[in-house]
Amino acid sequence: MQYEFGMIGLGTMGRNLLLNLADHGEAVAGLDLDASKVELLKQEGTGKPVEGFTDAKAFMASLRTPRVVMMLVPAGPPVDKVIESLSPYLEKGDLVIDGGNSFFRDTERRFNELGAKGLAFFGIGVSGGEKGARFGPSMMAGGPAESYERMRPLLEKVAAKADDGEPCVALFGPGAAGHYVKMVHNGIEYALMQSIAEVYDLLRRQVGMNNPKMADIFEEWSTSEIGGFLLQITSTVLRKRDPETGLDLVDLVKDGAKSKGTGKWTSQDAMDLHVAVPSVDAAVSARDISALFDERHAAASILKPSEAKPPVLSNDQLKGALAVTMVAAYAQGMNQLRAAGTEYGYGIDVAKAAAVWRAGCIIRSELLGKITQAYRANAQLANLLVAPGLSDFVLQHLPGMRAVISGAVNAGIPVPALSASLSYVDGYGSSRLPANLIQAQRDFFGAHTYERLDQPGVFHTDWSES
Amino acid sequence: MQYEFGMIGLGTMGRNLLLNLADHGEAVAGLDLDASKVELLKQEGTGKPVEGFTDAKAFMASLRTPRVVMMLVPAGPPVDKVIESLSPYLEKGDLVIDGGNSFFRDTERRFNELGAKGLAFFGIGVSGGEKGARFGPSMMAGGPAESYERMRPLLEKVAAKADDGEPCVALFGPGAAGHYVKMVHNGIEYALMQSIAEVYDLLRRQVGMNNPKMADIFEEWSTSEIGGFLLQITSTVLRKRDPETGLDLVDLVKDGAKSKGTGKWTSQDAMDLHVAVPSVDAAVSARDISALFDERHAAASILKPSEAKPPVLSNDQLKGALAVTMVAAYAQGMNQLRAAGTEYGYGIDVAKAAAVWRAGCIIRSELLGKITQAYRANAQLANLLVAPGLSDFVLQHLPGMRAVISGAVNAGIPVPALSASLSYVDGYGSSRLPANLIQAQRDFFGAHTYERLDQPGVFHTDWSES
Repeated sequence: MQYEFGMIGLGTMGRNLLLNLADHGEAVAGLDLDASKVELLKQEGTGKPVEGFTDAKAFMASLRTPRVVMMLVPAGPPVDKVIESLSPYLEKGDLVIDGGNSFFRDTERRFNELGAKGLAFFGIGVSGGEKGARFGPSMMAGGPAESYERMRPLLEKVAAKADDGEPCVALFGPGAAGHYVKMVHNGIEYALMQSIAEVYDLLRRQVGMNNPKMADIFEEWSTSEIGGFLLQITSTVLRKRDPETGLDLVDLVKDGAKSKGTGKWTSQDAMDLHVAVPSVDAAVSARDISALFDERHAAASILKPSEAKPPVLSNDQLKGALAVTMVAAYAQGMNQLRAAGTEYGYGIDVAKAAAVWRAGCIIRSELLGKITQAYRANAQLANLLVAPGLSDFVLQHLPGMRAVISGAVNAGIPVPALSASLSYVDGYGSSRLPANLIQAQRDFFGAHTYERLDQPGVFHTDWSES
Repeated sequence: MQYEFGMIGLGTMGRNLLLNLADHGEAVAGLDLDASKVELLKQEGTGKPVEGFTDAKAFMASLRTPRVVMMLVPAGPPVDKVIESLSPYLEKGDLVIDGGNSFFRDTERRFNELGAKGLAFFGIGVSGGEKGARFGPSMMAGGPAESYERMRPLLEKVAAKADDGEPCVALFGPGAAGHYVKMVHNGIEYALMQSIAEVYDLLRRQVGMNNPKMADIFEEWSTSEIGGFLLQITSTVLRKRDPETGLDLVDLVKDGAKSKGTGKWTSQDAMDLHVAVPSVDAAVSARDISALFDERHAAASILKPSEAKPPVLSNDQLKGALAVTMVAAYAQGMNQLRAAGTEYGYGIDVAKAAAVWRAGCIIRSELLGKITQAYRANAQLANLLVAPGLSDFVLQHLPGMRAVISGAVNAGIPVPALSASLSYVDGYGSSRLPANLIQAQRDFFGAHTYERLDQPGVFHTDWSES
């Protein structure tokens, strides 16, 4: 039997994506050095055209040539290791796809290295978690168009479908374009998760609301105009009981957030591009602060909590804070994609990114329908905050957001992502910001020069001379 | 004549540092390809042991061997270019010092490259602007101890002196340690400048206060317990008249802030180290937002300003917001230095960093005396926010800060650095953060596992199973 598609790395994501392909009639083979994972694949694939291998040579020999091989392994050195282990068996025309969360600069390097050897490389970011991989992920591809065309029918079959039936997969440009789009997707994911956590914290602290009650609220929101995957799972998580203790499981989970780096990369690269993504930045640093578990416990007795009562906020106000933060986070990500498209030569179509995120992925939400429309109507749109159909939505929810944040500020409840998002909106909507003072200070101590409002040119002043 | 010390790059900083050395009796020579700068050096150095050159060979021949040559040129390729142009004339034992704002990874590379050629390299961050360089900068050195000892008497002579008479110069470790400390200094500088600008914006908008009145307030603060260079120059800047129009010059300066990269590097590297520096992050993105000058003007008519009145805040409340932000920014920077010291093998003494910043540099402030004491009393101090002598100060000013930020939030005035700093304090002081929800979400969709509060171990749950 010659298999049409090979997968290396049979963790949950790889196994599920392979089973998804098999469901669509594709004969597929998987490789993992861990025999138990190969066994799992065979069990789960019973009755489907699926084979599993622990030996690379046998695996490669089972694939129809020219081969299409995807790897779904942890980002970093494992990807290079897999490529190296494959190389004895690779032949001209074979296509090697990295389907993981690789850092885009690593992907660029691999394109160069494999290209030099005459081998075709390709990068695809896959989002949707276990369930997405199994029943329809959102996929962001980058690489040569001819390679994409080779896989397109297959990818479109297994991808999630948006409400209008469009498959949630697209080619975003050459090189690491796909991994770049996936990275920014994950940065937005950080911002959305952090802002949901902040709203949860407010609900929890303001009236000591219990978890099932909070679950009801998040469930209601999850089918509203801001609804989506993360709100859905928040509600599910809040209802989960610990079988051992009978307590709500979420209350037993340690409040120290880990990260795999994709949010951090998004912030770091946005800074290089001079694109402001403060909602993502705040989510990244909030995770780092949460990790200081012991320090926080010691500090809490010294930095006594505020004496102000937690604010009593309406569900609509809280939802408003979340709604504006979501638009701000998507806006920041889209602007980063556009800037990266120019800077790195990817030419990313931001409308396509919004479209591909409408279903299957972690950040999917009802808002992405409106966002896709906004960019389809105006590809040059400067910012989602001022898009027809979205600016009204933002304006409608801003008063609620202000009430939520000012209440939290007075009560001593940290809301870093919500406040960073509000500062973003208020800053972007300010015709005059105080950066004139910063420019004057810079010119004062470093002779960095400044521009003027009333005449063109570049100026330097001896400010200390009166 | 054989000169003791050579300077390459006779811009304001290089020229002034050279004149400072000459003031202390050192015979010095300068090199610049721009003859007008050499001419300036000669004019300003009349009567002092100073010589200027436009020719590298003659310059190098004029220096006593083994030579000590510093360059003060823009960071990046110019540094490599200077090193290359010097190399025909360099001899064993010569010491080449980069005194600019080089990115620490570039400095590490140069240490390796020059070391391989048997040449001694050294990195010194110089802060204090033009005036500092001329009359006493703060200097942060990194490299081999024997090289530092060679220069120490000279550096201690020209450095700024703290109130206790200590010279504001120190060796922070091998390699790029000095440039790393200078980078973090600049990151803190970004945060302080942004927060001062936000307070200025509030004063300006709340009652339409005029510039001389604001100058009085900043002047008062500049001699208080939070006083320092940036508050002083803010007051001076606000008093400056434009000779051409007779108007206050600050009002004519365009509100689009530029940057040279050091703040961005601080944020980016802090993220790699998993140290939260949200006050710096907010300052970096605020500059990027300010640069969107035309977009902001267009957005202001769509994102109509809040209808709430600007809050009427007392000077003490505003000062409180600034005070807490300053402590938060120093705390973040110090923790970054400590983490970098471990991660990169610099072994940075944070008490020494605080001490060296007490005078001469841009971020000098009265607070740094207390901060130096705090670290000298306890080198293991987890965070300045909980230091004896500082935690009370923070607690005292927190209510004012809350009033300032909640007022700004309601009035639609962006205060990104102030709110990021408050979130940092409130987050660090929270024994329970909502990161448990984030960990549960991550485990839900990505099987990323979580820890529990009630038992050790690592757990994974099928959250959707009820």
